[in-house]
Amino acid sequence: MKYLDKIDSPADLKKLSVSELPQLCEEIRDYIISETSHNPGHLGSSLGAVELAVAIHYVFDTPNDKLVWDVGHQAYAHKIITGRREQFHNNRKYHGISGFPTMSESEYDAFGTGHASTSISAILGMAQAAQLTGDQNRSHIAVIGDASIGGGMAFEAINEAGIRNVNMLVILNDNKMAIDDNRSAMSSYLLHITSSPGYNNFKTKAWNFFTSKRKISNKIARWISEVGNGIKGFLLSGSNLFQSLGFRYFGPANGHDVKVLVKTLRDLKSIPGPKLLHVITVKGKGLKLAEEHQTTYHAPGQFDPETGLLIKSNAVNQAPKYQDVFGETILEFARMDEKVVGITPAMATGCSLTIMDKVFPERVFDVGIAEQHAVTFSAGLAVGGLVPFCNIYSTFLQRSYDQIVHDVALQKLPVIFCIDRGGVVGEDGVTHQGIFDLAFLRSIPNMIISSPLNEHELRNLMLTAYRNSQRGGLPFAIRYPRGRGVLKDWHNEPEELQIGKGRVLKKGSDVAVLTLGPLGNNVASALEMLKQQNIEPTHVDMRFLKPIDEDLLADIAARHKVLITVEDGVAQGGLFSAVSEFLSNRKLDNRLEHVAIEDHFVPHGDIPSLYKELGFDADSLVEKIAKAKSEIQ
Amino acid sequence: MKYLDKIDSPADLKKLSVSELPQLCEEIRDYIISETSHNPGHLGSSLGAVELAVAIHYVFDTPNDKLVWDVGHQAYAHKIITGRREQFHNNRKYHGISGFPTMSESEYDAFGTGHASTSISAILGMAQAAQLTGDQNRSHIAVIGDASIGGGMAFEAINEAGIRNVNMLVILNDNKMAIDDNRSAMSSYLLHITSSPGYNNFKTKAWNFFTSKRKISNKIARWISEVGNGIKGFLLSGSNLFQSLGFRYFGPANGHDVKVLVKTLRDLKSIPGPKLLHVITVKGKGLKLAEEHQTTYHAPGQFDPETGLLIKSNAVNQAPKYQDVFGETILEFARMDEKVVGITPAMATGCSLTIMDKVFPERVFDVGIAEQHAVTFSAGLAVGGLVPFCNIYSTFLQRSYDQIVHDVALQKLPVIFCIDRGGVVGEDGVTHQGIFDLAFLRSIPNMIISSPLNEHELRNLMLTAYRNSQRGGLPFAIRYPRGRGVLKDWHNEPEELQIGKGRVLKKGSDVAVLTLGPLGNNVASALEMLKQQNIEPTHVDMRFLKPIDEDLLADIAARHKVLITVEDGVAQGGLFSAVSEFLSNRKLDNRLEHVAIEDHFVPHGDIPSLYKELGFDADSLVEKIAKAKSEIQ
Repeated sequence: MKYLDKIDSPADLKKLSVSELPQLCEEIRDYIISETSHNPGHLGSSLGAVELAVAIHYVFDTPNDKLVWDVGHQAYAHKIITGRREQFHNNRKYHGISGFPTMSESEYDAFGTGHASTSISAILGMAQAAQLTGDQNRSHIAVIGDASIGGGMAFEAINEAGIRNVNMLVILNDNKMAIDDNRSAMSSYLLHITSSPGYNNFKTKAWNFFTSKRKISNKIARWISEVGNGIKGFLLSGSNLFQSLGFRYFGPANGHDVKVLVKTLRDLKSIPGPKLLHVITVKGKGLKLAEEHQTTYHAPGQFDPETGLLIKSNAVNQAPKYQDVFGETILEFARMDEKVVGITPAMATGCSLTIMDKVFPERVFDVGIAEQHAVTFSAGLAVGGLVPFCNIYSTFLQRSYDQIVHDVALQKLPVIFCIDRGGVVGEDGVTHQGIFDLAFLRSIPNMIISSPLNEHELRNLMLTAYRNSQRGGLPFAIRYPRGRGVLKDWHNEPEELQIGKGRVLKKGSDVAVLTLGPLGNNVASALEMLKQQNIEPTHVDMRFLKPIDEDLLADIAARHKVLITVEDGVAQGGLFSAVSEFLSNRKLDNRLEHVAIEDHFVPHGDIPSLYKELGFDADSLVEKIAKAKSEIQ
Repeated sequence: MKYLDKIDSPADLKKLSVSELPQLCEEIRDYIISETSHNPGHLGSSLGAVELAVAIHYVFDTPNDKLVWDVGHQAYAHKIITGRREQFHNNRKYHGISGFPTMSESEYDAFGTGHASTSISAILGMAQAAQLTGDQNRSHIAVIGDASIGGGMAFEAINEAGIRNVNMLVILNDNKMAIDDNRSAMSSYLLHITSSPGYNNFKTKAWNFFTSKRKISNKIARWISEVGNGIKGFLLSGSNLFQSLGFRYFGPANGHDVKVLVKTLRDLKSIPGPKLLHVITVKGKGLKLAEEHQTTYHAPGQFDPETGLLIKSNAVNQAPKYQDVFGETILEFARMDEKVVGITPAMATGCSLTIMDKVFPERVFDVGIAEQHAVTFSAGLAVGGLVPFCNIYSTFLQRSYDQIVHDVALQKLPVIFCIDRGGVVGEDGVTHQGIFDLAFLRSIPNMIISSPLNEHELRNLMLTAYRNSQRGGLPFAIRYPRGRGVLKDWHNEPEELQIGKGRVLKKGSDVAVLTLGPLGNNVASALEMLKQQNIEPTHVDMRFLKPIDEDLLADIAARHKVLITVEDGVAQGGLFSAVSEFLSNRKLDNRLEHVAIEDHFVPHGDIPSLYKELGFDADSLVEKIAKAKSEIQ
């Protein structure tokens, strides 16, 4: 690569002439395509932001100037030109670089991201700090997508920034997409102001007319002058949503013309106060198939770097993904009962609610990146007599903690939460691990919290939740992991379970292993292996974290000296805590061990490596159980 | 009262003629003033919404039509005319009616509220449900204030509602105030569109001009016609922020002219799709002092119903409020160190950050009702090298759970969280009890969590947090309750404490009581009383929930058979869980008892009644401890 090989930092980038930048962008694009074709990652949005990354680092003085990438999955070009070109082949791998900007990884990552809509708050904080400490020359740039800017906290930040006279630039990277289509009033508005020739034509003409000096004498002229002031007011503040909110709006600009971007950013650099530059980009830019199938190529897995054709994994003999079992099952229920509706905040493809959407689009609500709204909207649907299945990834459910407490649980509304990506998720890493949900949900009164051992159990729990909701029961959470299940023959006839009741999977002695969710399958494997050592513990599938099966626990505690809880979440607050509290409350002196995530964040990497590190793999479980058994007098 | 005495439901209201409504409104206003003058409540906003409540129930067919009051503290008139006139003297009292709309209290309360910005999501859910179930005639109304509409989730809901063709009306109750001044880009915009005669004049003129037919021949006419289409586009969709987002905007209307409101609402009833009616009201309307001092009279306590003069409580000999100790102390730190800044989401008066604001307004940030933004903005300030004290009430901190995890704790940014209103808050009731914070914070890695026994300890912890932040330490939460402390001589010279270390307040035997926070004072009283029974337990002030003092716990566990944890929060996840886990991890078989909030929501009422119910009062503690002691063999 003629240019890219020499770019080890933005300083190297600045040695190039502007006319050399398009070629560099092509090289970066080829490099991203080539690397992600065999080491999968967030392809589409990163291809869309190549010119942006180059232009920003070319014009601004990073890392002194502060740059925050919202979500951050579009920042591969940024990473490559800020000293991480050589490490990029380890992108998202265990012990490799993160797929998202990370403060501890590089000084060029001014703020770590992963969840959407945080960038404007963060950059406003830095800009405000610069102003207070007298550093007036520093620039502050947030790059945010058209889907992320719809998230509530982005609006909160805009709403404050508009009245602060700080030096900040928001670059709205508008590709008309979330992972799925971005449909919202804001996106319609953006489409309107970017695609309406009438609007733009009028804007230019009117501005020229009323700002030029000309002579027209008579009543009309007076009227024009009068109206003209009004129109100027519109053009300056009233005509544009962002200008209404105190930002100076610029654009729309072509986000793939790096020369135009460089010129525009240079112009904007000297303009004080909050500014918004609206750029239009194409998700997947430069790879034809990715441009044409933007949802598929958001994070496509492996593909042929020349043709873009996906390399199909040999899925024929594999168990299905949990998300697909959810998708197929809700469709079955929706066919049976027209009151069944599905809600998701911008995860329709990822959670497979698209399966129902194809058949019953009017009963599926993708509300955009808006987890708070999704939950309270679901509560409203429940008040309206429907049976809402609200599907949110565990890590994003954190955004709606208050709504779960205040709008759902407090009012005992029968919303069904299907929590996808529960537990360790792998390559997406530290910002995306779904490890807090069990802990933060358990302390909420009125919640039913469950997790299925496998696909059959997922269907059983969904039926149980559905019937419970029909009866106007309590809110019901079903938490399951990312990825595939364990049963090829997944399509059972679902049966209703008794809420709050677990089951004994295997009767043994001395040691009882209590599991919640699919980690139970690893425990089952471990117990098979332990037979060779003549260790035969009991295995209990708790099914429900809340209400927890106290009768079963009492019985198990009476017949085993040692209990071991196993859960794919933080130790502090989940199953381990629940059993620990139970033993205290019942004044029982069983020894209690646990397998869970101790008090730390979990980095990115492949699941086997992470499971080994966390002690979740069968080998580690064998060791843990054998040790516990050996310590019994 | 000529009319009000006969109003037992909206049906009675509908028997009046429109011309009788102003008189009724006056009677309601007098009744609210008279009742709240001796039984304090949210006076200001409820006085502002009298005509709104009357007009809505007069025009619409509640409870079949659905009405949601955002926040709900403005809904006293609504409560009074929907069958709760007689109970209103028990407003906010223990076992009385709630100060907020509550589904379980009345069918007219279509959705319970308390926290801000939820109403549009909830009403959109109900409207969507009506549409799906074929109930096309039902109306759906959300009343939301100009401060609450700035909350992120309100924007999320507007952003979705704008593309849904459902029958819903948002009434924007614009009184230009939160509890404090409402300063944001949105509020500036609302002021602009309501107060600018130029704007409204132009809007009307331009609309008339371009929609009328007239003859002007020559180039100018053609241009006008061309421009006219652009302006019509503006007026219809581009010229107004809400219209940009797909709402039909009406207003501004005088919110105290009940006849105009009735006419307008009747007109709007038949217009389909999402609509926004902007009404201007005056907080405290009808009580002169309340109109003039809107922050003071938001919830003024007792006052003279005739003059409005506040009845001063005899505070001279009382200990200070914790909030004031916070306010005075941060001001002291701010004087010492210009890097100290204060952030609060619309609680500046309630948390007494106003004390610092008076001296250093440029270093105090009231970011409006925007808890998510407040936290990530604080994170940005920390990145910028400042020492941010972010003050949020415990119940509202729930809104920023994800930001605490993702933007602060994960990145180990030294944000100081001063969590006011921690624990049971009293009359504000179930939506406002700050009882989940200890549980939801404890499972987050990297968090330091503390709670002071008294005012001196609050100052000590604030100094400790400040020094820790200066050193770039971990995020630090200090949680303290609503109301007054216990020390008249509160102004100690603060000293830095060792993070994660508790202290023994009283050495005893057999039983050790472990407390966190000011409930320790009730325990101290209980221990005094227990001396008469010759029971002398040990009393430990844990100070820190996290990191918990394991050395101290080990020592205490070794020397006492029974441990009792006492905390003003939910049992599941807080101090009880932490000690329970500790005992399990160390394989210790001490008996562990706990005093905490069991798995339920806590209703409203005075603190003594609630404490008695929860077992937090000294008498209950005496009983609990004596019983534990008696059960030791």
